[in-house]
Amino acid sequence: MTQQPQSKTAAILVIGDEILSGRTKDKNIGWIAEQLNEIGVDLCEARVIPDVESVIVETVKSLSQAYDYVFTSGGIGPTHDDITTACVAKAFGKKVIRHEEAMRRLLVHYEGTDIPFNEARQKMADIPEDATLIDNPASAAPGFILHNVYVMAGVPSILQAMFEGLRSRLEGGQKKRRLTVQCAIGEGTIATIMAEVSNHFEGLSVGSYPWFKPGQFGTAVVVSSKTFDDVLAAANQIASRVRADGFEAIILEEGQDK
Amino acid sequence: MTQQPQSKTAAILVIGDEILSGRTKDKNIGWIAEQLNEIGVDLCEARVIPDVESVIVETVKSLSQAYDYVFTSGGIGPTHDDITTACVAKAFGKKVIRHEEAMRRLLVHYEGTDIPFNEARQKMADIPEDATLIDNPASAAPGFILHNVYVMAGVPSILQAMFEGLRSRLEGGQKKRRLTVQCAIGEGTIATIMAEVSNHFEGLSVGSYPWFKPGQFGTAVVVSSKTFDDVLAAANQIASRVRADGFEAIILEEGQDK
Repeated sequence: MTQQPQSKTAAILVIGDEILSGRTKDKNIGWIAEQLNEIGVDLCEARVIPDVESVIVETVKSLSQAYDYVFTSGGIGPTHDDITTACVAKAFGKKVIRHEEAMRRLLVHYEGTDIPFNEARQKMADIPEDATLIDNPASAAPGFILHNVYVMAGVPSILQAMFEGLRSRLEGGQKKRRLTVQCAIGEGTIATIMAEVSNHFEGLSVGSYPWFKPGQFGTAVVVSSKTFDDVLAAANQIASRVRADGFEAIILEEGQDK
Repeated sequence: MTQQPQSKTAAILVIGDEILSGRTKDKNIGWIAEQLNEIGVDLCEARVIPDVESVIVETVKSLSQAYDYVFTSGGIGPTHDDITTACVAKAFGKKVIRHEEAMRRLLVHYEGTDIPFNEARQKMADIPEDATLIDNPASAAPGFILHNVYVMAGVPSILQAMFEGLRSRLEGGQKKRRLTVQCAIGEGTIATIMAEVSNHFEGLSVGSYPWFKPGQFGTAVVVSSKTFDDVLAAANQIASRVRADGFEAIILEEGQDK
């Protein structure tokens, strides 16, 4: 992966025992990764960690220092195992306060329902001081931004609703462009082609992803760079050389290639 | 999460730009997590990192020191972007050698096919010195074990085939047992019950996972511990108290609860 200085960098931090036990399959890393790619933010790493205070505090500190943006998912609900808010506050030496605007939103949300707005639910209005709220159009309880850390819910539909509101606030960069050369050939056969083409272009990355179906196999060669001209030229070179070797090769645009 | 000293600990390291770009959705973390849970190995963290040498080398070193087992996925194929083998070797100050037994397996695999066993494919027989091979019944090219690092392919079907052969070599521990109390109630309403029951048992973890469908909502309360008696007692207490409050609660065994 080529890091170009003008792009913002990011990490995703998924917080939750349920992912590490295998009970729940994470869907947030892949989804956020796609959004960041779209915006032109370079996602540099993703981590899954347990609901353990010391681990959360230390990981938030270190990722916050290493990257421009940190996106967390999980651990901001009403129950005793939801400790993300307190941990993120601690990572930055902040107090957690009962946030007036967050309380107002929750009051409105629960008003007229038969769901009691009890102490546990009021806990969802606890936000680190100096944090900015992240709107939650799905279930009212807000996320928050503290420094460069964006704290969101773990439930994918809620996280996605929160992220939509954030999108315009995120400063991206030049989006990485991508083309996929779908080749009816094993990756071992085109390794040399890939390496040679890859060396011709500065900042171009060429990855290969073999696939297998009963009776069939092939390789998706993914070419990406911030310079679309390079991507197009490289994809064409790879496709031509694969075809010259007597195999099929089709160039697919982003969106068609999954 | 309660760490009990007798359990082995583990980390998963997914290596690949294609996951961080959002193009490919990782399936290996969730799958390995389930297997480790089954064996009784505590998965303590999972990371996704790019195909960048310095990052792979440093992450392998630090995870290898921190945990009993490290499982990697991705980057051991025939192409120029497959750098995992070289990086893991470097992390432990080992040379990469063309491994005789790995070569033999690949020769057998490609013999009689029209797939050329060229230099790129021979690269898949490059293994760090002193490493132990991991069988690959799916596509021959082996993974390997170096110290406590288990290096596997990124393609889920191949990784899974490799892991099956490893399973009996892994020293597990007492499996964590788990019951889920499926409650027709918001998690904010049972937060107090959960916290109180959780405090009654040493080493018991109680997590809550709200869910929403059109017109319905509820909370899955997941109780887990290495002591099944505690899990059963805690699940019963939670279910009884939820029912006493006038809501439905059903206790589900592991396997029924996803």
